[in-house]
Amino acid sequence: MIGIDWGTSSLRAYRFAADGQLIGRRDTPRGILTVGAGDFPDTLRAVAGDWIEDGERRILMCGMVGSRQGWVEAPYLVCPAGLDGLAITAPAIPFPDVDLRIVPGLSCRNSHGVPEVMRGEETQILGAALDDGEATVCLPGSHSKWARIKGGTVSGFATHFTGEAFAALAGHTILARMMNPLSPHHAGGFARGVARARQRGGLLHHLFGLRAHALFDEMPEEEAASYLSGLLIGHEVASALEDGVAPPIVLIGAEQLTLRYAAALDAFGVPHRTANPDAAAQGLWRVGQRLW
Amino acid sequence: MIGIDWGTSSLRAYRFAADGQLIGRRDTPRGILTVGAGDFPDTLRAVAGDWIEDGERRILMCGMVGSRQGWVEAPYLVCPAGLDGLAITAPAIPFPDVDLRIVPGLSCRNSHGVPEVMRGEETQILGAALDDGEATVCLPGSHSKWARIKGGTVSGFATHFTGEAFAALAGHTILARMMNPLSPHHAGGFARGVARARQRGGLLHHLFGLRAHALFDEMPEEEAASYLSGLLIGHEVASALEDGVAPPIVLIGAEQLTLRYAAALDAFGVPHRTANPDAAAQGLWRVGQRLW
Repeated sequence: MIGIDWGTSSLRAYRFAADGQLIGRRDTPRGILTVGAGDFPDTLRAVAGDWIEDGERRILMCGMVGSRQGWVEAPYLVCPAGLDGLAITAPAIPFPDVDLRIVPGLSCRNSHGVPEVMRGEETQILGAALDDGEATVCLPGSHSKWARIKGGTVSGFATHFTGEAFAALAGHTILARMMNPLSPHHAGGFARGVARARQRGGLLHHLFGLRAHALFDEMPEEEAASYLSGLLIGHEVASALEDGVAPPIVLIGAEQLTLRYAAALDAFGVPHRTANPDAAAQGLWRVGQRLW
Repeated sequence: MIGIDWGTSSLRAYRFAADGQLIGRRDTPRGILTVGAGDFPDTLRAVAGDWIEDGERRILMCGMVGSRQGWVEAPYLVCPAGLDGLAITAPAIPFPDVDLRIVPGLSCRNSHGVPEVMRGEETQILGAALDDGEATVCLPGSHSKWARIKGGTVSGFATHFTGEAFAALAGHTILARMMNPLSPHHAGGFARGVARARQRGGLLHHLFGLRAHALFDEMPEEEAASYLSGLLIGHEVASALEDGVAPPIVLIGAEQLTLRYAAALDAFGVPHRTANPDAAAQGLWRVGQRLW
């Protein structure tokens, strides 16, 4: 089978042998934002057409390709949900010669009735093979997810707007003048930001402190973006812990992000480990196993 | 004397009779961002030149005109500071026929050593004539200030990045698609945002909830910007209270903002009142009295 992890800014294609071995992988920048409304079939064919010609007849996709801005809007499966539920509710898309399906997203409501959604992360979480016992999975990103998994089922999750807030604050406020968002990660600045997040006063107050430090020449430009990152991630971790998130924490995501979250969790003294970076591929395979 | 409240986006000029009565006032959009580096003298003359010709020989300015981007950089006076301190340290600027001075800003450091600054607000706070007893003064804005005043002296203050965070989040994240930042204030949406801010989970989590509400058609476009405003102001008030801010709270600022903060303080059950909206003019007069 073929697995496609099709997100907002990238498309990753995986080819599996009958025993689940990964025998091909392609990373492309063909995220859904780069694809016109009617161009999804041609894009898929451009990326994986040779594998189809080679005999593959089953394709399973996950991610934002199943959103309103994607190819077909797939439903949100309500938590608690596991691999079986994802397989049963995966909608089929007409595609010549191929059984093509999309993994649904997940939704839940917290105790205050506020909705939560994810699309793509469910495949990574259930791909991390945390089938026994309980764990908390953290997937850093524009919209970071903290999910609770128990006996192979996602019982609920919470999202934090951390990555988008970073981009907006670093790029579109007075803080932009004192930092270069593209400067290399500065571990010391990041640690200072995390430490500040653990103090009183709230995030909005701490953001101004960053500005004020610069006015007093106490915040070198090369540290400032990492400080802001540490401040936001520190607040995210503090809120997640206050909200009852329990260790062990399993981190899934790009290394540049999981390393930062690992450092923040260390500062809070919370045990953690990092999952297989191919969790999305594994999740696609595992859902596919229940479909076909 | 003439008082000039010269901020980032506006210039307000006041003419006082010898007994302090306000006998002239002019509101202009000639904030420092609209004035070229060498054009401050001509701008002042354009706004108040006829008053000078009419015999005024004393001009006192406050606000961002005393910042690095302004006419002359005035110092920050370290808290605790009152009217006498502002008068003694107000730098003089050469200007033909006129004794021209700038009120300094204030600075302090919190218990964690993080610096704080204000420029312009000190004149409003000390213009509000809170000379007896203790009070907390809140000045909402891009960088909201919460200052403690005791016996006519500002003992310390804290800043929250609320207004700038609102603009960046409402204008430069996915939230922008679901709201019109210029839509009229929606009291119900604002109250929902304040109520959400009082729940667990942290600001970054609450921001994503706003997005998720919209995905489930639970957030009308006409409410969304006010909800975001309530969320941010609610977090600001919660943090200020947690930080030990004590009532009574005195609000100073534009009515559109003080009404929002009043509603948020009501939701938290905190007593408050609104100060004279001409606090800046009164503060300029009161510093001037100590100068001349």
